[in-house]
Amino acid sequence: MADKKLVESITSMEEDFAQWYTDVVKKAELIDYTSVKGCMVIKPAGYAIWENIQKNLDAMFKETGVQNVYLPMFIPESLLEKEKDHVEGFAPEVAWVTHGGLNELQERLCVRPTSETLFCDFYKNDIHSYRDLPKVYNQWCSVVRWEKETRPFLRSREFLWQEGHTAHATFEDAEERTIQMLNVYADFCEKVLAIPVIKGRKTDKEKFAGAEATYTIESLMHDGKALQSGTSHNFGDGFAKAFGIQFADKDNTLKYVYQTSWGMTTRMIGAIIMVHGDDSGLVLPPRIAPTQVMIIPIQQKKEGVLDKAFELEGILKSNYRVKVDDSDKSPGWKFSEQEMRGIPLRVEVGPKDIEAGKCVICRRDTREKTEVAFGELDAKVGEILETMQKDMLERARAHREEHTYVAHDYDEFTKIFNEKAGFVKAMWCGDQACEDKIKDDLSVTSRCMPFEQEQISDKCVCCGKPAKKMVYWGRAY
Amino acid sequence: MADKKLVESITSMEEDFAQWYTDVVKKAELIDYTSVKGCMVIKPAGYAIWENIQKNLDAMFKETGVQNVYLPMFIPESLLEKEKDHVEGFAPEVAWVTHGGLNELQERLCVRPTSETLFCDFYKNDIHSYRDLPKVYNQWCSVVRWEKETRPFLRSREFLWQEGHTAHATFEDAEERTIQMLNVYADFCEKVLAIPVIKGRKTDKEKFAGAEATYTIESLMHDGKALQSGTSHNFGDGFAKAFGIQFADKDNTLKYVYQTSWGMTTRMIGAIIMVHGDDSGLVLPPRIAPTQVMIIPIQQKKEGVLDKAFELEGILKSNYRVKVDDSDKSPGWKFSEQEMRGIPLRVEVGPKDIEAGKCVICRRDTREKTEVAFGELDAKVGEILETMQKDMLERARAHREEHTYVAHDYDEFTKIFNEKAGFVKAMWCGDQACEDKIKDDLSVTSRCMPFEQEQISDKCVCCGKPAKKMVYWGRAY
Repeated sequence: MADKKLVESITSMEEDFAQWYTDVVKKAELIDYTSVKGCMVIKPAGYAIWENIQKNLDAMFKETGVQNVYLPMFIPESLLEKEKDHVEGFAPEVAWVTHGGLNELQERLCVRPTSETLFCDFYKNDIHSYRDLPKVYNQWCSVVRWEKETRPFLRSREFLWQEGHTAHATFEDAEERTIQMLNVYADFCEKVLAIPVIKGRKTDKEKFAGAEATYTIESLMHDGKALQSGTSHNFGDGFAKAFGIQFADKDNTLKYVYQTSWGMTTRMIGAIIMVHGDDSGLVLPPRIAPTQVMIIPIQQKKEGVLDKAFELEGILKSNYRVKVDDSDKSPGWKFSEQEMRGIPLRVEVGPKDIEAGKCVICRRDTREKTEVAFGELDAKVGEILETMQKDMLERARAHREEHTYVAHDYDEFTKIFNEKAGFVKAMWCGDQACEDKIKDDLSVTSRCMPFEQEQISDKCVCCGKPAKKMVYWGRAY
Repeated sequence: MADKKLVESITSMEEDFAQWYTDVVKKAELIDYTSVKGCMVIKPAGYAIWENIQKNLDAMFKETGVQNVYLPMFIPESLLEKEKDHVEGFAPEVAWVTHGGLNELQERLCVRPTSETLFCDFYKNDIHSYRDLPKVYNQWCSVVRWEKETRPFLRSREFLWQEGHTAHATFEDAEERTIQMLNVYADFCEKVLAIPVIKGRKTDKEKFAGAEATYTIESLMHDGKALQSGTSHNFGDGFAKAFGIQFADKDNTLKYVYQTSWGMTTRMIGAIIMVHGDDSGLVLPPRIAPTQVMIIPIQQKKEGVLDKAFELEGILKSNYRVKVDDSDKSPGWKFSEQEMRGIPLRVEVGPKDIEAGKCVICRRDTREKTEVAFGELDAKVGEILETMQKDMLERARAHREEHTYVAHDYDEFTKIFNEKAGFVKAMWCGDQACEDKIKDDLSVTSRCMPFEQEQISDKCVCCGKPAKKMVYWGRAY
């Protein structure tokens, strides 16, 4: 049995989800708070998850022809101001550098909140001819947004992300890349993180500052709140016109390029916690887990036990990320730690097991135990990890389905949001006034207009006028 | 023959080494300049080298037990000021954030020039007992130093690096880690970058702000200037005392921890260029080259040529990083591009080769050509890459030896630095006044006191007083 003390130190999810979340990020040693308000330390257990996110996503990017680059972290104020909508969206929340060394700067620089303006400034010099297109560049970096309220991973003043920025000869090429990267994000979430997502388009109210169209993947957390998990923007030629990015096309005429950008951030670590976690702590999907298997020796001081544990590690390590916990803690405490940290499988092996030529595999998500002969361990671990990965996605999908409601009119809509938590599918007239009213009344926002539309009714759920789109609504992180 | 136009567009090394360097970083498409003074764009060809540096170095770190983390990019002014020597060293060259969004900050924040103070602030809360030690953490990030004169990769206001920060129970453990990481850097430079280094200790004048001892690896560029290529610092318990980082030892007494830090930066890309490059451009050591083999079809429009080129790519790609240049440029132009970009091998294949069942491999460094039957290509490529990697290190070592001089007195010392460029080995009394004089007279600095000491004379090369150490002197980047 797992030791109770470590587990009892975290709040139950049902009692207080926000406190549970905070407890897990601390007790699973993912982050630490710092003297810098709104910024966190990402500790080894947290950063290792980000490294795996990077590794997986970066490989998927490169398969589609993405090349990585690095641009400066500073944006001169005059550059930030070139695209009107963009500066309006970001200026209120940037950090300003005013002094370099002992001198005041002639022009202040903001720390990048996102790098559209820098990429435009770069592309303006780098793109001359249709032969230079497309440019499909990405950077892994940190960005800063001066948020008032912050929460580890979900909203912090500095966070890590990747930002892709592309330039194309035609609107259609840009649109195709926008959708392609949204699909990469969706595949990554479902296949690697075991998080099902709704793909769709943001309303004009919710789109990115300066974008023509913003596409999004939205996921549902265990508490029924929505999390925007990745976005992909088509800028049309708006930035190109503001920055003068032109190319000589095959017909020898000068044309503006069409651009996109797309990003995914460390908030996905928050999503993993809130989709898969339980009252014993974190539960990591096998594909993203930095350690997939923790071997815990029982009565490790007895002769042969530790040797066997390391022998099993030797067998497993060519196929899986595996460790032995040979610390001098009790097995119960080790179980609790392995559970708190969300390590998918634990292998228990003690003197009796060794005598019987077997060990016990315990799944983190279901706690299901399986006795396995040593000779079958390698294959069985692979099989269980595979099953666990699949089950976690299916469980998350089932949870989302159970917490997705349909509302035909505003009474029903209000009642659901007052009594339940989840996505609500409802029709919308396309008027921002209705979004504003819904936000004022219920703190609910339009999450997306899904690609898979349904005709729930022919009237807007808010104003009753003719409906244009079915929208997913929710309370969001 | 390679097309002359691309090559002629760069200045010859002998004529003007600084201009040659600038030409190569631009023409090999490693960087671009930006609207942000002193900051650069690292373009795909440059960033791919950095990705390989990261991959190799990170794996070497992890083998020694290093764990990656991420700390904030901002340091509150009061935190930076806690260690007196450290703040004196860095305050004159940091960028200050004074405003967040529309509001002035209560305390200004500097953008990290290095993160000792942040790690101390973190360790202060994270370390309680001897069981928590050692902490062996590292982060990959960018840092900012408000330099007045900048050059791509070598000195820029923002640069990429890794910074390791460790905490230990004893001075000896800290010293051991300091030397261990210096050795990792030296191995990495020699085995991966084919750059030989001198390992040694910095004088007090040249050591890191706040360090008890700074160790360094120093390399010699083609023009005879020295480049500090990696440093590893032992802080003793100085930072621990300034920040109050204590742990309960086994004997139940509270003790201060001992700390180290060590870093390597994107300036190593500059080192690769300046050690290995030639008048045709970049020459990349095979182990670090993002593309190791470029297959260039000759008369590619003739039937079967492109097919054969892609067939060879298929054969090579499981063992090497290989590409086919199937663009519509002339073969000569493609040769020049492959040479400018420093791709180690080029495979030429045309109709006559195909008929004869062979192709030609051309080495970037020596231009040596080898005819190879298709069936032997895979093995031969491996063999030549291996030889080239070894030859490049040996050539760089020979160049360094040829440009390492010995001076017994100040006349000789002055004469060498007036007439030649390279390292000078000479004795030193240990007095900073001599270092100051040498710097004033000759713009020469002490590079390091090498671990491998030699007794050149018993007198200081500058003042003639009894000598304590043999020192490598040089003009440095």
